[in-house]
Amino acid sequence: MIKDFNFYAPTRVVFGRESEKKIGELVAANGGKKVLIHYGGGSAQRSGLLDVVREQLHGAGIAFCELGGVVPNPLLSKVREGVELCRAEEVDFILAVGGGSVIDSSKAIGYGVPYDGDVWDFWAGKAVPVQCLPIGVVLTIPAAGSEMSSSCVITADEGLLKRGINSDLCRCRFAVMNPERTFTLPPYQTAAGATDIMMHTMERYFSKYEDMSLTDAISEALLRTVKESALVVMRHPEDYRHRAQIMWAGSLAHNDLTECGTEKDFATHRLEHELSAIFGVTHGAGLAAIWPSWARYVKDKHLNRFVQFAVNVMGVTNDFSHPEETAECGICAVEEFYRQIGMPTSIHELLGREITDEEIDTMVEKCSRGGTITVGAMEVLDAQAMRDIYLMAR
Amino acid sequence: MIKDFNFYAPTRVVFGRESEKKIGELVAANGGKKVLIHYGGGSAQRSGLLDVVREQLHGAGIAFCELGGVVPNPLLSKVREGVELCRAEEVDFILAVGGGSVIDSSKAIGYGVPYDGDVWDFWAGKAVPVQCLPIGVVLTIPAAGSEMSSSCVITADEGLLKRGINSDLCRCRFAVMNPERTFTLPPYQTAAGATDIMMHTMERYFSKYEDMSLTDAISEALLRTVKESALVVMRHPEDYRHRAQIMWAGSLAHNDLTECGTEKDFATHRLEHELSAIFGVTHGAGLAAIWPSWARYVKDKHLNRFVQFAVNVMGVTNDFSHPEETAECGICAVEEFYRQIGMPTSIHELLGREITDEEIDTMVEKCSRGGTITVGAMEVLDAQAMRDIYLMAR
Repeated sequence: MIKDFNFYAPTRVVFGRESEKKIGELVAANGGKKVLIHYGGGSAQRSGLLDVVREQLHGAGIAFCELGGVVPNPLLSKVREGVELCRAEEVDFILAVGGGSVIDSSKAIGYGVPYDGDVWDFWAGKAVPVQCLPIGVVLTIPAAGSEMSSSCVITADEGLLKRGINSDLCRCRFAVMNPERTFTLPPYQTAAGATDIMMHTMERYFSKYEDMSLTDAISEALLRTVKESALVVMRHPEDYRHRAQIMWAGSLAHNDLTECGTEKDFATHRLEHELSAIFGVTHGAGLAAIWPSWARYVKDKHLNRFVQFAVNVMGVTNDFSHPEETAECGICAVEEFYRQIGMPTSIHELLGREITDEEIDTMVEKCSRGGTITVGAMEVLDAQAMRDIYLMAR
Repeated sequence: MIKDFNFYAPTRVVFGRESEKKIGELVAANGGKKVLIHYGGGSAQRSGLLDVVREQLHGAGIAFCELGGVVPNPLLSKVREGVELCRAEEVDFILAVGGGSVIDSSKAIGYGVPYDGDVWDFWAGKAVPVQCLPIGVVLTIPAAGSEMSSSCVITADEGLLKRGINSDLCRCRFAVMNPERTFTLPPYQTAAGATDIMMHTMERYFSKYEDMSLTDAISEALLRTVKESALVVMRHPEDYRHRAQIMWAGSLAHNDLTECGTEKDFATHRLEHELSAIFGVTHGAGLAAIWPSWARYVKDKHLNRFVQFAVNVMGVTNDFSHPEETAECGICAVEEFYRQIGMPTSIHELLGREITDEEIDTMVEKCSRGGTITVGAMEVLDAQAMRDIYLMAR
């Protein structure tokens, strides 16, 4: 069966070596008169990118203020700070300079500014956004795909709750992408990014809707390309060609192109969110630690799909008489790929220590919201299934 | 090398069996208060689709007027009629119900209504559009890809000049796509549509920018899928699954996704435009008649790319020691595919008669605008090259 779908990807992508030269013009074309430049740590400053952004806005005659300090797994406290600042400065456009954390923090601020109540209401399920300030992106980390997605994931400082919401309102007006800006990404972050990108597509590829062959073929093309390019850039971090594949794949993996006719599963993401919220690990590395266990937990009920993945993505030879072997070889090949790029394949490898029973209890409790919700779509997972997978991934 | 690129595909796609039920809501969300329903022949009426559209607008409380009679290779005279009608009726939204001809006629009307001069000025190169009425689409023929493209091709009745222009202004606000609506397409039109779709991607795949491996892989995925699905629907016209692949591929083939990092060549399109303008042939069939000759004319200078196409798209076994053989086998495989779906592979087969020397002179004269312009990008073709290819395709 093919799932009916909507596809809406209005973000204007400006991709290439000279793309930063368009920033002023793009903000102006989108009506920005007072901009918040939102960013993370010092790398955007050190690399000179922030100076380029300031010059661009200055050159276009656009006023701006700045807010840095966004951390990975972006925090509600920073969002609140941004909302206050935007109101005080009468900001009408947010320019996110960074990766997924900065973009998501920008989206959350964008929701918060025109909203009268507490901005966390949207993630607590107490309110639904009806407005968002316009957002533009200068992307420096290909991973989260937030530059073209409807998603916004925020972590509440207290209780370390990491939660996501989706709305077309926060889709970015433009995304400026220069692969050269990713040359200096550390290997671990490069590998975690590639893992996250591949997972965004795999979370849509493993679906009970198995009839959309065009989407399957595009997803397989994307996965093979990212896998190959990731191996190259681990050895040659300044290879423009392969950095470009990863950067563009990051956007296509999460702008819903690979979901046309299928369905989000996102169980691995949901299981991982508890890891990165509690232990502060890099999201992509957390996904690598969980996925092989999730895959082995669900594969017997979805053998054909795991065989297709093994053969068409991981290059496993199809053993037609033993599909369960082919499927298992596909999962092993993913683990081998993770090892090659320095990603973990278990929670033990991720944290560098054994996780305790109490920690697993806490993660199951939070992921299932006290046993009240399930995760996943191809295979629906209740609290017991979550526990089983955490134990397998231990 | 990878070409810097912009990607902008803001059209909201609503895809599936129930998609027509969204028409009223979509027009309203896009601010339509007085709609022109623009369509072609009687099939939209006979199938009941026009009634559904009228009910939808009626149900949403939206006024409308109608203009039918758009022909394949849509004519300037109909565009002029539409512009007059829209002005008289104060139309603020155009709803195209049909395929590429109806959509392009709608785009041209959209350009013409707010323009003071003669609407043909845009195609004559005397003016550049700065405004366009908003346009929505209910797609019935997957082929032209106009529902997500920036392209608009119109034929001037006098002199039979067929010309295209591109602008983001005419990109459709939404496209409603129900594959069931394509079940009744005649085999010839189905085959010509699949040919046109594949050609839109091939015209971007054959490029001197050969380094964007993600785009290559996506293009190859799309081409393989359309080829396979076309063969199925020729035998099983009511196969929803394969009609769906072709329909969605038609949009992705021409929304610039397959051009990210590469470049439009479109020489085959430009050579074909003279055929369909003069002889009124179906555009997709005209492309099939020209492409093999274009391919043989340029292939020796771009052998690697033709080998990649042969192996990755047409499933030819790579004869590593004889790449020119592999490349030729790829072109032969395309011809064999055209034969299987009832498309021509020469102008003789297309017209059912030999083309005269005078007719070739006329086509070369028009395509080269009296020897003043070239066509193509991977290989630039002057008037002599155009003549050579027409003679090869004869």
